[in-house]
Amino acid sequence: MRETFTQASAVHERHRDGDRASFSADLHPGWGVGGRPNGGYLLAVLGRAVAATGRHPDVVAVSAHFLRPPATGPADVELEVLHEGRSVSTVRASLRQEGRTCVEALVTTGDLDRTAPVWRGEIEPPAVAAMEDCTRLVAVTDAFEVPLMDQLDLRLDPGSMGWTVGAPTGRGELLGRIALLDEPAFDPLSLLVAVDAFPPAPFDVEVTGWVPTIQLSAYVRARPADGPVVVRHRAQVIAQGRVDETTTVWDRNGAVVAQGTQLAGIRLAPR
Amino acid sequence: MRETFTQASAVHERHRDGDRASFSADLHPGWGVGGRPNGGYLLAVLGRAVAATGRHPDVVAVSAHFLRPPATGPADVELEVLHEGRSVSTVRASLRQEGRTCVEALVTTGDLDRTAPVWRGEIEPPAVAAMEDCTRLVAVTDAFEVPLMDQLDLRLDPGSMGWTVGAPTGRGELLGRIALLDEPAFDPLSLLVAVDAFPPAPFDVEVTGWVPTIQLSAYVRARPADGPVVVRHRAQVIAQGRVDETTTVWDRNGAVVAQGTQLAGIRLAPR
Repeated sequence: MRETFTQASAVHERHRDGDRASFSADLHPGWGVGGRPNGGYLLAVLGRAVAATGRHPDVVAVSAHFLRPPATGPADVELEVLHEGRSVSTVRASLRQEGRTCVEALVTTGDLDRTAPVWRGEIEPPAVAAMEDCTRLVAVTDAFEVPLMDQLDLRLDPGSMGWTVGAPTGRGELLGRIALLDEPAFDPLSLLVAVDAFPPAPFDVEVTGWVPTIQLSAYVRARPADGPVVVRHRAQVIAQGRVDETTTVWDRNGAVVAQGTQLAGIRLAPR
Repeated sequence: MRETFTQASAVHERHRDGDRASFSADLHPGWGVGGRPNGGYLLAVLGRAVAATGRHPDVVAVSAHFLRPPATGPADVELEVLHEGRSVSTVRASLRQEGRTCVEALVTTGDLDRTAPVWRGEIEPPAVAAMEDCTRLVAVTDAFEVPLMDQLDLRLDPGSMGWTVGAPTGRGELLGRIALLDEPAFDPLSLLVAVDAFPPAPFDVEVTGWVPTIQLSAYVRARPADGPVVVRHRAQVIAQGRVDETTTVWDRNGAVVAQGTQLAGIRLAPR
C-alpha cells in the first residue's frame, strides 16, 4: 500500500495558544517496520508540525527519545516553543496516543540552502555501486516484514548484502543509496527518514531480533541536490545490551546533507 | 578557584510531586569558559538530579538543546519523568534561571557496569602520547580565559597543539587525555564533562571566536576503569554557519566509555 511521504507525514493544526500548539497526524502503516512506524518517519511528522509553527522553516537538529512504540493510526502532536532566536529556534515536540507520550523530541529549526560546505574533514563519500548495481530491499522476506521498503527505493551496495544470506562482514557497516518514489529530491524532513531507513547496522555483525531505538539525533546540514542520496550506516560498539549507530547522508554532489546517531537496545546470541 | 566536580555539580531537592520534581543548583564559575558554564558540566548537573529521582541509577543517553547561556550562580532544575521502563527510564530536564529555560534536555537512565564490550568496530583507541608527554592546557592565555582547565587536568597530544601557535593541521581533530583532579575515576556524570571539555575541534582548522553549542547528545557506554581517559574530538563539516563535532572517550583499557556529538554555530573569516 503506497502513500507518498508528503501525504503520510501530513499534520493538521488543531489549535494554537501562545507558545503551545497541537496537531493531529495519521501514522501510515506503510511507513513502518513489522507493524511499528519507522522512527525517522515519526521525526518527520514532528518536524513538519514544528516547521509549520515557528519562525524558521527548516529542521536543522532533532533529538528524540523513544518511550513506547506508537501504533499506526491517529496520533497527537503537542508542541511548545521554548526559544525563538535570530538564527535558530527550539521547540519541544511530543507524539502521543491515547494520552501517553510515545516519542519525546526537541527540534531546532533554522534556514538551510544548497550552499556547498566551507570545509570538510575526513568524510569523503564512500565508494558505493551505482543505483542499478545495488540491490533493492523488498518489503516482505521470510524473516522480516518491512513495508517501508515499498515507500522508498532503498538499495544496498553488493558488499553490504552478506548479512541477508547469513554472511555478515563483521564490520557493522551498511552502504547504499535511497531515492524517494514520488519526489525528485529529499528535503530536510524526508532526510530524517533517510537517516533511519537502513536495516540495523549491527546486522552486518549478527542478525538479531528487533533493535529498538532508545535515542536518535539528526542534523540536517544542507538542502540536497535532486536525486538519490548515498548512505553509510555503521555501528561502533555493542556493550551492555546497547549499540550505537552513526549515519551519514551525502547528496549526489558529495555534500554531507544529514548526519544521525542513535543508541538502540540489542540482544546478541550468547557466545 | 578550585571546587571538586562532586561539589560543583551538587543539586538539592526542593520538592517532588508525582512525576515532577524540582532541584536547586549553584553553577560554579570555575566549571566554565569565558564566564559561561561548560555545556558538559550543565548536563552533569541535570544528570545528577535525574539520577537522584528515578528508578535507574546511571545516565546512558542525554540530548540537550542550548537555548541561552546561563550565568554562574543559582539555577533551578525542573524534572518530569516521562517513562519508567524495566531497562531504561526517560526524564525531561530543564535548567532555568529567573524563570527562563537555558538548557532543555532529555535524559535516559539505565544500569551501567564495567563489563567489556561484546563487539567493537573500527574504533580502536587512537595513538596518543603518554600523559607526561602531552601538554596541559592552562586556564588563562592571551587569547582565552578557560577556568575549566583549573578544574581538570586536560592535556593535548603534541600533534594537536599546532592551533595554539597559529599552525592548525587542517584536519579538525584534537587528541588528548583528561584526568579528574579530585577523583580516581570518571563516572557516568563526569564523563558528560569529558565529552564537552576539549577546545572546539574546528580550532584545528581555524581559530575563531566562540563556537556556541546548539545541540549536544552523549551516550555513556560503560563505567570506566580508574585513571585518565583518552579523548578524540573531531569536526567533519563546516557548512551554513554550523559545525558538527564528534567525541569519543576511551578508558585506559581501551573500552569506549562515552560518545558525544554536537552541532554548534561557527563563523569563519571570509576566504
